[in-house]
Amino acid sequence: MPDVMEKQMVLFDAAPESYRHWKLKVDGRVATLLMDVNEDAGLRPGYKLKLNSYDLGVDIELQDALQRIRFEHPEAACVVISSAKERMFCAGANIYMLGLSSHGWKVNFCKFTNETRNGMEDSSRNDGLKSLAALNGTTAGGGYELALACDEILLVDDRSSAVSLPETPLLGVLPGTGGLTRVVDKRKVRRDLADLFCTNADGVKGERAKQWGLVDEIAAPARFGALVAERAQALAAGSTRSAGAKGIKLNPLKRNIDDSGYRYEHVNVGFDRGARAATLNVSGPRGTQPRNGNEIHAAGDSWWPLAMARELDDAILMLRTNEPELGLLLLKTEGDATAVLTNDALMVANGEDWLVRETIGMLRRTFGRLDVSSRSLFALIEPGSCFAGTLFELALAADRSYMLAAAEDEATLPKIALSEMNFGLLPMVNGSGRLAARFHGQAPKLEELRKLSGQKLDAEAAIETGLVTVAPDDLDWEDEIRIAIEERVSLSPDALTGMEASLRFGGAENLLTKIFGRLSAWQNWVFIRPNATGEQGALKVFGKGSKAKFDWERV
Amino acid sequence: MPDVMEKQMVLFDAAPESYRHWKLKVDGRVATLLMDVNEDAGLRPGYKLKLNSYDLGVDIELQDALQRIRFEHPEAACVVISSAKERMFCAGANIYMLGLSSHGWKVNFCKFTNETRNGMEDSSRNDGLKSLAALNGTTAGGGYELALACDEILLVDDRSSAVSLPETPLLGVLPGTGGLTRVVDKRKVRRDLADLFCTNADGVKGERAKQWGLVDEIAAPARFGALVAERAQALAAGSTRSAGAKGIKLNPLKRNIDDSGYRYEHVNVGFDRGARAATLNVSGPRGTQPRNGNEIHAAGDSWWPLAMARELDDAILMLRTNEPELGLLLLKTEGDATAVLTNDALMVANGEDWLVRETIGMLRRTFGRLDVSSRSLFALIEPGSCFAGTLFELALAADRSYMLAAAEDEATLPKIALSEMNFGLLPMVNGSGRLAARFHGQAPKLEELRKLSGQKLDAEAAIETGLVTVAPDDLDWEDEIRIAIEERVSLSPDALTGMEASLRFGGAENLLTKIFGRLSAWQNWVFIRPNATGEQGALKVFGKGSKAKFDWERV
Repeated sequence: MPDVMEKQMVLFDAAPESYRHWKLKVDGRVATLLMDVNEDAGLRPGYKLKLNSYDLGVDIELQDALQRIRFEHPEAACVVISSAKERMFCAGANIYMLGLSSHGWKVNFCKFTNETRNGMEDSSRNDGLKSLAALNGTTAGGGYELALACDEILLVDDRSSAVSLPETPLLGVLPGTGGLTRVVDKRKVRRDLADLFCTNADGVKGERAKQWGLVDEIAAPARFGALVAERAQALAAGSTRSAGAKGIKLNPLKRNIDDSGYRYEHVNVGFDRGARAATLNVSGPRGTQPRNGNEIHAAGDSWWPLAMARELDDAILMLRTNEPELGLLLLKTEGDATAVLTNDALMVANGEDWLVRETIGMLRRTFGRLDVSSRSLFALIEPGSCFAGTLFELALAADRSYMLAAAEDEATLPKIALSEMNFGLLPMVNGSGRLAARFHGQAPKLEELRKLSGQKLDAEAAIETGLVTVAPDDLDWEDEIRIAIEERVSLSPDALTGMEASLRFGGAENLLTKIFGRLSAWQNWVFIRPNATGEQGALKVFGKGSKAKFDWERV
Repeated sequence: MPDVMEKQMVLFDAAPESYRHWKLKVDGRVATLLMDVNEDAGLRPGYKLKLNSYDLGVDIELQDALQRIRFEHPEAACVVISSAKERMFCAGANIYMLGLSSHGWKVNFCKFTNETRNGMEDSSRNDGLKSLAALNGTTAGGGYELALACDEILLVDDRSSAVSLPETPLLGVLPGTGGLTRVVDKRKVRRDLADLFCTNADGVKGERAKQWGLVDEIAAPARFGALVAERAQALAAGSTRSAGAKGIKLNPLKRNIDDSGYRYEHVNVGFDRGARAATLNVSGPRGTQPRNGNEIHAAGDSWWPLAMARELDDAILMLRTNEPELGLLLLKTEGDATAVLTNDALMVANGEDWLVRETIGMLRRTFGRLDVSSRSLFALIEPGSCFAGTLFELALAADRSYMLAAAEDEATLPKIALSEMNFGLLPMVNGSGRLAARFHGQAPKLEELRKLSGQKLDAEAAIETGLVTVAPDDLDWEDEIRIAIEERVSLSPDALTGMEASLRFGGAENLLTKIFGRLSAWQNWVFIRPNATGEQGALKVFGKGSKAKFDWERV
């Protein structure tokens, strides 16, 4: 039903003052996020968000709240996620919303919620922001998946509150936000117990939930608050976030939207609907830049890497959700490569500063969104471009890169450059740097490239070192790019999605690549099978009193 | 079109005397398998197997030929795979066959061809049987994927012969037999070059194919034969297979089929169509068993572990392809646990004997088929059962196991037992043993279990050690099993397939789990999307002169 769900543009903006579904409170080292979903404030009409169930709008606020804690409250070292409702933590994703959604909407919704939850683990692992799920009541489906993303899970032991993943038995789909993967890979629940758990719509409560490893600790209602406070303090005590840090304000993004594209301060998105492509142009730093930690803090959210990352992040999300037919993103850059390299050196030198560390985290998660975007990515390295260091990650994220090799005026030819930022500080979700993955982790090759850091490389050197894909000269450039674009956008969008997801993640797999590869691919399949979404599919008939009808063939 | 493809039962029997598509020749250390597809001998009517393209029937013969080389020609240490056609190695899977096939047929076909190719790598890695692809002409799609499974790839350099994966640009689907995964993960082709390669229907030839890593060596037609012979000898020279080994004969399986099930000598499959379940009952060794290597060789293919594995392998394949609606396999065993344990000890003691080694390989690949079967697996450990050592792998492969815990006559209560065979000799496709995976590789736990090897454990001990899932007593047994079966078969078959694939492969991923998880799941999705299989989908209109029509939304 794309009409209902997709006719209105989705914006990913939010601010604590106007949250409809969450209450954020920061008290010293502990931030508390209470889920309190307003059932009448769904992002789209047609469903009510009962029982603390959520839709994309609820998750946009959660993502915003986590960003606020990261940047505005760096003194907070543990975030407690709980619910403001009585005996109900969260019933999971809203089923009626899913029933009304197109295939693409469901897939994008799952991807965004996955990224938010993965981001919590990313922050815990890299930046010391711990999280604690305080399950004060029923915790089902996506609600339990949110808990699984936390460092610890506490469950109230009141004889009724259970954790559950009822998707398979109740809805004929999978828990799509990492539940299956985290139960076995993160919580290390034994696989046969996980099988019992994931096929039992009633879930598991109390002592058994703890024994199976589904939760870390349980407590009677009277003792639950004290246990939560105690565990939150313990987690905060083990954090690297500093009690004395002073936050910066995240101001609203400056953004113009019209039918030709999105324009931000450092990011410019231009649509070419005829070509089913969009140009995503990122600018390097302009004007005077901070030279030390103090000046970075003074610049706050206008500091180029942070401002650029926030804009790029927003642009990727906007394109994904609002422009599904623009299947090819042409990644371009412009500006002063030296300014990027100078800034990269500043980031590396100040890596212990919380704001720098959080900014690198923001860059890491933003580039990570590109890797898992179901869009073809071509980097175009042209005169005036600025593919250096941090911005060279765009070329490394691309499925291919084209670099102009020769022109009449040699002085205008583009150069690329590596910096320390390309050597592991911005890993993909599989934990491997893009440069390392490109060369399959071959140490001698990476050493050779490291020695070239900071040098401006022309197309010949870029081809020679394997840093770009193709280097046409100016006589061929226009035709070659035009044909490459035309060919790419003529291919089956589905086959491209599967192909790109396979080629982008060579080498090791981990929990996150399992979620974005194995789990998401199975879920995409399940979502489109009549057993889930046909007229008598389980997802369609939910709550209507009729029983799903299945084709019993196992495939 | 299930009518055309599926109305006739598929048998997986083959023998060199009656091959229609392959020529097998063994000359000392080198076996040669020439693909020479008879275009009029498709497994089903409705398509011609032109240009050495293949269907399931062609691959059944390939699988048989590999088995013959493993067991009947142990002196052969390298198998050269080439073609008997001029300038045409293999055009890949037959597109018209795919166009006529149901979703389930396509998925099962891909799974079997994947297993055959994975089996070649398994034999190379574990048992010293090397393989060499001698590409004497055009090599497209599944043809190149077959080559990718070999240890080395040689391509004739005749200015026209190319390797290609044209599935995405030509057919709107993925190369479904590991091509995407092996190009980046095994051949370590740079991902942007892989992107160029996989989107170009014409493929890559000659020097460039070598430069990109798509093939290992090229040679002009006049020199090609000599190069192939030279490289085959070199691969054979590095093999652990012994030139002096004398093969055994693989006789046809003794098997009765009727509408109630399949009956073999050691394996019995009973259908319960009403319950959408089948019972798969495996018997332990009966009568006098070999006590040493000589007696094993004298027994030949009637030696219990080999005979049982061949039957079990056939039963799994027959169920998968011919009985898609039997969604739950109830795994049972019967016989003398001591005889299994004695036999296990004999296998471990004679692990260097080629026949024992190959038999363990056969067991490994057979149990591996269970792990990737899209069927729910419950092990039922009842009085008279024989879940010991090698046969306990069935319980470990199961999604759940039920063991009878108490009965009036205590003497009849079932016992289970571990043996050395459960500690890494029969790994799953992810390289992890089932027992190790069950306990997430915790070394102290595995040490504790190893000390219990050979002991017969009752239900209490089995529950205590975590070796079984549930242990009802005789008052509850019948109801509990009945309800568990009823509940399981009532769930969405698609959701179960995705859930089981996720829970069965906790822990590490590798090339094979990527193929069975990431790649297969994406392909299942692509296969069912209208862009591939709708009336105007790319797979449907291939060869009909009309152009595919795509929904351009990226999902």
